[in-house]
Amino acid sequence: MINPFFNNCGPFKIFNIFDASIDCPFSFENSSNDNDIIHDVKNLNEATSRDITFFHSIKYKDLAINTNARACITKKEFFHLLPDECIKISCDNILLLTAIITAKFYPDSITDNNNYDLLNINEKFKRIISGKNTLVANNVIIGKNTKIGHNTLIENNVKIGNDCFIGSNVILRNAIIEDNVHILDGAIVGKKGFGFIPINLKNHRYPHIGYVHIKKNSEIGCGSTIDRGSLSVTTIGENTYLDNQVHIAHNVKIGNNCIIAGQVGIAGSSILGNNVMIGGQAGISGHLKIGNNVQIGGGSGVIKDIPDNSKVMGYPAKDFKKFIREGR
Amino acid sequence: MINPFFNNCGPFKIFNIFDASIDCPFSFENSSNDNDIIHDVKNLNEATSRDITFFHSIKYKDLAINTNARACITKKEFFHLLPDECIKISCDNILLLTAIITAKFYPDSITDNNNYDLLNINEKFKRIISGKNTLVANNVIIGKNTKIGHNTLIENNVKIGNDCFIGSNVILRNAIIEDNVHILDGAIVGKKGFGFIPINLKNHRYPHIGYVHIKKNSEIGCGSTIDRGSLSVTTIGENTYLDNQVHIAHNVKIGNNCIIAGQVGIAGSSILGNNVMIGGQAGISGHLKIGNNVQIGGGSGVIKDIPDNSKVMGYPAKDFKKFIREGR
Amino acid sequence: MINPFFNNCGPFKIFNIFDASIDCPFSFENSSNDNDIIHDVKNLNEATSRDITFFHSIKYKDLAINTNARACITKKEFFHLLPDECIKISCDNILLLTAIITAKFYPDSITDNNNYDLLNINEKFKRIISGKNTLVANNVIIGKNTKIGHNTLIENNVKIGNDCFIGSNVILRNAIIEDNVHILDGAIVGKKGFGFIPINLKNHRYPHIGYVHIKKNSEIGCGSTIDRGSLSVTTIGENTYLDNQVHIAHNVKIGNNCIIAGQVGIAGSSILGNNVMIGGQAGISGHLKIGNNVQIGGGSGVIKDIPDNSKVMGYPAKDFKKFIREGR
Repeated sequence: MINPFFNNCGPFKIFNIFDASIDCPFSFENSSNDNDIIHDVKNLNEATSRDITFFHSIKYKDLAINTNARACITKKEFFHLLPDECIKISCDNILLLTAIITAKFYPDSITDNNNYDLLNINEKFKRIISGKNTLVANNVIIGKNTKIGHNTLIENNVKIGNDCFIGSNVILRNAIIEDNVHILDGAIVGKKGFGFIPINLKNHRYPHIGYVHIKKNSEIGCGSTIDRGSLSVTTIGENTYLDNQVHIAHNVKIGNNCIIAGQVGIAGSSILGNNVMIGGQAGISGHLKIGNNVQIGGGSGVIKDIPDNSKVMGYPAKDFKKFIREGR
Repeated sequence: MINPFFNNCGPFKIFNIFDASIDCPFSFENSSNDNDIIHDVKNLNEATSRDITFFHSIKYKDLAINTNARACITKKEFFHLLPDECIKISCDNILLLTAIITAKFYPDSITDNNNYDLLNINEKFKRIISGKNTLVANNVIIGKNTKIGHNTLIENNVKIGNDCFIGSNVILRNAIIEDNVHILDGAIVGKKGFGFIPINLKNHRYPHIGYVHIKKNSEIGCGSTIDRGSLSVTTIGENTYLDNQVHIAHNVKIGNNCIIAGQVGIAGSSILGNNVMIGGQAGISGHLKIGNNVQIGGGSGVIKDIPDNSKVMGYPAKDFKKFIREGR
Repeated sequence: MINPFFNNCGPFKIFNIFDASIDCPFSFENSSNDNDIIHDVKNLNEATSRDITFFHSIKYKDLAINTNARACITKKEFFHLLPDECIKISCDNILLLTAIITAKFYPDSITDNNNYDLLNINEKFKRIISGKNTLVANNVIIGKNTKIGHNTLIENNVKIGNDCFIGSNVILRNAIIEDNVHILDGAIVGKKGFGFIPINLKNHRYPHIGYVHIKKNSEIGCGSTIDRGSLSVTTIGENTYLDNQVHIAHNVKIGNNCIIAGQVGIAGSSILGNNVMIGGQAGISGHLKIGNNVQIGGGSGVIKDIPDNSKVMGYPAKDFKKFIREGR
């Protein structure tokens, strides 16, 4: 799929990706593939034989074994886990090198600058019911019967389906919004994630070339923030409702029919199944897998994977009955 | 009292309320009251002999025994708790049936659409000191010496008292604000609550016909959200101060002289007494009763009622001295 | 240093500061200094021999012993801790009296009123790249290559450096922002802190004459709130990154190269060293000292000082290994 929000400057010959000026030492397992063409940067599980990927944590071993990627940035001790046909590149700072080559493909992804040339919505969409001072980029698509409040900003390439309700003071960028979605006042959707690599007391920002996908019939509460993915998509499933002041970090994927109460926070790259219910102020750490039909009590702190059909509470979260029995 | 924000399409004959198309089975205890007239939908304790109410949890038994309601939607095993003269209607999904009949009385309450036809405040209020791009509905009332910032939205029927200070980027709807109230930048007051009934993998939104009442001399911090009640009023007491990023859910009632620090969350329908102090990031579950002069430590998770004059801390919150003694 | 945001109406003769109408009893240790001139109100450690200060908690004993202040509001039992040459004033309500005299010096600091007379940014800054409806005060200073989004408000005397990126719907007041700072959408910087003294069931607001200082290369996330100091400065160090929905209360000082994840809250007057990392939703109580290189796990509640190089987690936060070993 062509990236809907960022322009890919590739393809590049593989050795041209890593140009001489990179301040991040790396080495190829062997140099027999100088002329291979690389088309894109993708995650281990999404990369095709035309793409480069990265593998930085043993947590993703299973994805590495099965990756189709043409090349992979990793460390020497992980080489044996990758398929034979994958070109292996070792580096002490895998994330930094991945950030650098992502920026090579997508140079306009580093910043999260606003569109400065937005139009008043009435100049572009004559029939949309909308409030005052709402601004849209020229290439925005908005479906039928969608209503939009006041002071809302809809930036480049955002797509909004039919029968949506977008509140006031909302900011939408790098987002695809299906039919019948409600996004309430003050929500901010599609900002780049909180991803960067501290290097020599300076932070190197990780490019975020992903986007936010909000599926049909869902609702996003007031003041909630949903960050776009780094290489992949941040997803809110069908019929999933988020209350006010919820924070969803980059790359998170939430299933269908979930209910997420106020002030919940979900850290980067965690994946939630369907029918997950989360009480107010609960937090979920990054890179976790929460199964289907899981219930998480209010105030819980989830720091490990939760299997299907579990009910947990506490900090750290444990079996709900145990939490009640032990009084903590 | 006439609902100040939503138009009541009633009264209806009781049998007309439940028209044939309702997809939610129910049955009357007996059908001798076909011609009774019902004027409104109210909570158990607020309903008069002209109103219909609902009773869905044994937690509200005492209110049920004493209700004046003409009719009540409940389940068969609760029938004996209601007064003899109350018409009893049983239903497997009490909340859904209540939502459907509330929408029958108040059809415009389902959505939380913005007012799209707001005026610039200067067109209506010549003498109000205000910033740029602040918009008001035509029927808004604003008292003397009240000042309002930039980009603020004040929707239909909102009333603001004298000597108030309303910041910038504030959204006010379905709210009554007394004298000398400060509402700081980015606060969102009066949005519908996070209430809906999951039915066959679709969420049925509960109508919110209540409003937010902010009493005199109080303060609402930046980015805080206060949702309006479903059938009743969300109340902030006199001289009560809320810090930034606080979330107050629908139907919550907070007493006078309370101090609520940053990022606190109070779930739906909880009731707080006077002089309650709550430390930062504490959370209070729904449907609880917090007494007068209660102190709740920062970060606490309150999951049961707290009697007057208590000092609690922890998750779940317990006696403060015990928390300190046990180190958790 | 002259206060950059509030006009000092002093100096005053010391006895004129405490005029007869003050409803807060106090007494001088001796009255031999009637004609002393006081130029400003400052904290114990910042006061010079021209200033008055206050000393209300034994926690600040070391600062009291070493203060250079000409005069100090405190209680009788603390008199012996202050230097001989310091004029001692005793009062039952130290904070109230300090608030009253601060307002005497800085009468315009009590409220946090918006600037109502902002200009469109294009009227003042021809070359700044900016969005629509962004407003600035006439005396704002903005550096080269700084970009500013839509609907943003920049109030009196704010200074912004070069190469900054300010998002949309941002509010900046009482803030000094160095070069290359990113402030993302919806952040609110420089509001007065949540400081007041409950007196006879009325709250007396504490004047906030401080400001917010954001040092170079730092980033403030979407919807975050950073309150200005009461008497001192709220500081965000160089290269320090804050994620979304973070709350930083008045007088907090954060060092360099810190990483603060989403929904963290830091209560008033706490001081953080350099290289501090804080996981999502963690909270830090007020008046604490967090050392250099400290790591605080997500969801933690920190209620006491943390020494350098510690790794803590839990509520209350304890040694990380102990938290993992004990499972709480």
